[in-house]
Amino acid sequence: VRLVITGASGFVGRDAIMPLLARDAEVHLLCRSPQTIAGTTAYRLNLLSDDPAPLLAEIRPTHLMHLAWYAEPGKFWNAPENLDWVAASLRLVRAFTAAGGHRALVAGTCAEYDWSQPVLSERNTPLNPATLYGEAKASLFRVLEKAAPTLRLSFAWGRIFHPYGPFESSARLMGSVLDAVLSGRCVALSEGLQERDFMHVSDVAAALVDLLASDVEGAVNIGSGEAVAVRALVEKVAAMRHSTHLMRFGARPMQTGEPPRLVADTNRLEQEVGFQPRFNLDTGLADALARRRSPPFK
Amino acid sequence: VRLVITGASGFVGRDAIMPLLARDAEVHLLCRSPQTIAGTTAYRLNLLSDDPAPLLAEIRPTHLMHLAWYAEPGKFWNAPENLDWVAASLRLVRAFTAAGGHRALVAGTCAEYDWSQPVLSERNTPLNPATLYGEAKASLFRVLEKAAPTLRLSFAWGRIFHPYGPFESSARLMGSVLDAVLSGRCVALSEGLQERDFMHVSDVAAALVDLLASDVEGAVNIGSGEAVAVRALVEKVAAMRHSTHLMRFGARPMQTGEPPRLVADTNRLEQEVGFQPRFNLDTGLADALARRRSPPFK
Repeated sequence: VRLVITGASGFVGRDAIMPLLARDAEVHLLCRSPQTIAGTTAYRLNLLSDDPAPLLAEIRPTHLMHLAWYAEPGKFWNAPENLDWVAASLRLVRAFTAAGGHRALVAGTCAEYDWSQPVLSERNTPLNPATLYGEAKASLFRVLEKAAPTLRLSFAWGRIFHPYGPFESSARLMGSVLDAVLSGRCVALSEGLQERDFMHVSDVAAALVDLLASDVEGAVNIGSGEAVAVRALVEKVAAMRHSTHLMRFGARPMQTGEPPRLVADTNRLEQEVGFQPRFNLDTGLADALARRRSPPFK
Repeated sequence: VRLVITGASGFVGRDAIMPLLARDAEVHLLCRSPQTIAGTTAYRLNLLSDDPAPLLAEIRPTHLMHLAWYAEPGKFWNAPENLDWVAASLRLVRAFTAAGGHRALVAGTCAEYDWSQPVLSERNTPLNPATLYGEAKASLFRVLEKAAPTLRLSFAWGRIFHPYGPFESSARLMGSVLDAVLSGRCVALSEGLQERDFMHVSDVAAALVDLLASDVEGAVNIGSGEAVAVRALVEKVAAMRHSTHLMRFGARPMQTGEPPRLVADTNRLEQEVGFQPRFNLDTGLADALARRRSPPFK
């Protein structure tokens, strides 16, 4: 397995390297800015402006793991950059198959689904995104799935639910909560009544690698299958450091259009891919706290 | 109105220039190979390989009419080039709005729809393409429609049904029939029982220009609203030159998956855009025969 990965410096991508190396994959990173990760080979490439075809023709990867996307917290939901990433992703997959590649995994999102029902299933829930981000991902999925036979591509699509983890951006919910707990400062939150499907980012990355290593094709939900109220999750991690008093629930409004409950149907991930998570919420949150406190060497 | 058009040398595009000039638009052509059309300015640009941003920043168009796509007869339905055209179209629209453009029309297709019902309506018929071409167009539509508010773009999408006309490719149905009638040679056809919505290509182009000139947004069917059996259409044009005996119906198999009847709901085109066709089937077919017989100067 000679594998090319994009987005390896991102929140999910950085946790995908170890499980890939553990499977003896030869890992080639495409990065916007230079990077050194032990056991891998890095190439500088801007997917938005550079044609990836010459580089991929040189590497001749058999496998592709495409995680890169525009992900600026708060902005990505309706940013026009989503259009650029659809275009760049199509170009990347074309260059990959032209170079002889035959198995690809691309990152999707639970935001592709219609959110009017709480349990989101690959087979039964229609795609009906409320946001441009969701629409861009859903459209990319539909085109790639339809193109796969023509491209002689074995194509998998991981619909990621709600990852959390130690190095989450402070501009995101759990990142700001971890910062508050570790610094002893207050944090303003919504009431947090909405229930979501949270999964430790290391499990998300491991699930994506398992999916890529399988021969499962099409969309597969990457989630825990369990819904937890945001408030309960926050209280759980705060309680680990006796910091519940720092959590200002209700100080921020609920975002409009937020459904009360969203949870992944994980039947495909568990039965077809055979994925087993390493963390539950208690061990996952403890890990996030412990590792955020002591960041790794850069 | 300062307008940029792509695909102006194509089957539909070449008939769009006159109605655009008749509306006093300043017409700028983006062409892969150099072209001279009276009253217009042409620029050489390969949309698949060249970044259109610098040129559009120079032209500063207010309007965009994007018709270019991969259209090789017989091959385009499932060709991987459809992916390249999604990417190129997204890049083009991004460059257009970045250059200050605010009104765009892009060519869609009736192949975006679910074909299990005969009357195809923008509001009521789900998109469920059977082909990669249809999926690529449907996905491009969905992403652009969702992005339009962010891009401050007034966006219209013309879903073209079945155009026919004098300079139709000999590799397409009516092109081969016109060739047979004019040359006195036989032509092998299917039984031709399927009913389709045929429209003279000059009317298709004029309808697209009317749509662009209106402030109607979203998808609009570009069709006649009337279904005619392929066999009846062929017999009508053959009878005009007493050539019915040249038509070998049943000599070719029906293509698999061809639904018996497809017709456009033309309520939006007629009521909201206010389009009036110039041709009916009799005058349209007579025009196609007459002008194919005497091709224009190149």
